[in-house]
Amino acid sequence: MEKKDLLYQGKAKKLYQTTEEDVILAEYMDQATALNGQKKDAILGKGAMNNQITSLIFDKLAQSGVPSHFIRKISKTEQLIKKVDIIPLEVVVRNVAAGSFSKRLGIKEGTPLSFPIVEFYFKDDALNDPFINDQQVLVLAIATQAEIEQIKALALKVNEVLKAWFLSLDIQLIDFKIEVGRTKDGSILLADEISPDTCRLWDVHTHAHLDKDIYRRDLGDLVPVYKEVLRRIENNQ
Amino acid sequence: MEKKDLLYQGKAKKLYQTTEEDVILAEYMDQATALNGQKKDAILGKGAMNNQITSLIFDKLAQSGVPSHFIRKISKTEQLIKKVDIIPLEVVVRNVAAGSFSKRLGIKEGTPLSFPIVEFYFKDDALNDPFINDQQVLVLAIATQAEIEQIKALALKVNEVLKAWFLSLDIQLIDFKIEVGRTKDGSILLADEISPDTCRLWDVHTHAHLDKDIYRRDLGDLVPVYKEVLRRIENNQ
Ligand SMILES: Nc1ncnc2c1ncn2[C@@H]1O[C@H](COP(=O)(O)OP(=O)(O)OP(=O)(O)O)[C@@H](O)[C@H]1O
Ligand SMILES: Nc1ncnc2c1ncn2[C@@H]1O[C@H](COP(=O)(O)OP(=O)(O)OP(=O)(O)O)[C@@H](O)[C@H]1O
Ligand SMILES: [Mg+2]
Ligand SMILES: [Mg+2]
Repeated sequence: MEKKDLLYQGKAKKLYQTTEEDVILAEYMDQATALNGQKKDAILGKGAMNNQITSLIFDKLAQSGVPSHFIRKISKTEQLIKKVDIIPLEVVVRNVAAGSFSKRLGIKEGTPLSFPIVEFYFKDDALNDPFINDQQVLVLAIATQAEIEQIKALALKVNEVLKAWFLSLDIQLIDFKIEVGRTKDGSILLADEISPDTCRLWDVHTHAHLDKDIYRRDLGDLVPVYKEVLRRIENNQ
Repeated sequence: MEKKDLLYQGKAKKLYQTTEEDVILAEYMDQATALNGQKKDAILGKGAMNNQITSLIFDKLAQSGVPSHFIRKISKTEQLIKKVDIIPLEVVVRNVAAGSFSKRLGIKEGTPLSFPIVEFYFKDDALNDPFINDQQVLVLAIATQAEIEQIKALALKVNEVLKAWFLSLDIQLIDFKIEVGRTKDGSILLADEISPDTCRLWDVHTHAHLDKDIYRRDLGDLVPVYKEVLRRIENNQ
């Protein structure tokens, strides 16, 4: 399979068409961004780490029966994925209050929620990815009611699998964001990436941040932190 | 029935205990506020108009079988209502894009929605009444799933009745906000007020604003506008 035209250059990845119509090559870049792209830095080695972490996570999810776009990792920074029509939602699952949730609702960061909740954000950079409810998803024709139910069930399934796995690595899964897409036959697949860029991960004992909050909040060097997450994952697949 | 202690002084109304345990006297004040109280003005006659408008609207809703706190109007600016435990939600129904909905989602004000939608805002002045989804309502223990369903059904019923009635008055019901409360036996009642302070009402022909946007957006004098709404309602009960 050959790498062909660049389809999309995002903030963290480049997507290339391949010689196979429904297969995309995703290249993970050495770049970190925050605040919808306002903050931006080159970080050597980040692309390779996220490509490896997200590949291992999607493998784990596949073993647990979660349908995803992931085909296989093909180089340090590249992986093959099935092309889907991305549903323009950032789907967030929360186990513990943190970040914008804490600020907006006045709940101290670190407060456990009595059950995992799902939130939808409308993926639209110009609008700054506004938080929306199910009825707004429907009236904006982003997804059908049946798809909303499927997406929530998928998100909660991902949460169950990853929460348990991370816990075995002494990591608490605070919250995470996923994206989903439609295949040609209309089924819903987990897409995009799952990595310390898209999760909040806290060390169970020290409560240290093992995720992009290190970068967002200027808490230090991101590289050793992502390396530590990768080390724990690789030692316990 | 006698007026007793002041229970609550809000931005638009004062609530008094009465000699009857479960009955409150609501006094509508000559005051307009916007932007969560940052903008504030005395407006002579507004209290009497809103007391009259909301009384006629709650009467109309009662005739259509909507259970509410409203007992009866007892003076120009006063009405008796059943005391309830207010559920801390501002429940918004939208028929047409306007206001914050238009701004947040990039949909031009005046665009009809393909069906009415319901939104919840967490009534908390310190947090600035944040928009929340159903799962947040549940995890904050604001209401149960069954109550959420009841509240949505009530809100949509109010919408159906008022949309049709206002249309017969050449008024388009763009959106509105209601509050609901629990009685001692756990049933849900429509509470608070429904008036040009809490609805967006547009003249069907001129699209003129017949509501508090006149005040919020500094479009002119509020008094003749509210008088016009009252005139149309009184001519067609
Ligand atoms: N299987 C897939 N098929 C098609 N597009 C995908 C797939 N998986 C992820 N994408 C999209 O590829 C892009 C990945 O790039 P990146 O993560 O760098 O984007 P970004 O800068 O975060 O921008 P965006 O706001 O679009 O997510 C995203 O737009 C994502 O939605
Ligand atoms: N039947 C009822 N029983 C008890 N409280 C009620 C009832 N109906 C309305 N209320 C409450 O009475 C108050 C009415 O006052 P007003 O509308 O002036 O409040 P406000 O300044 O808008 O403040 P708030 O943010 O509390 O609504 C509101 O807090 C409302 O929730
Ligand atoms: Mg992205
Ligand atoms: Mg009020």
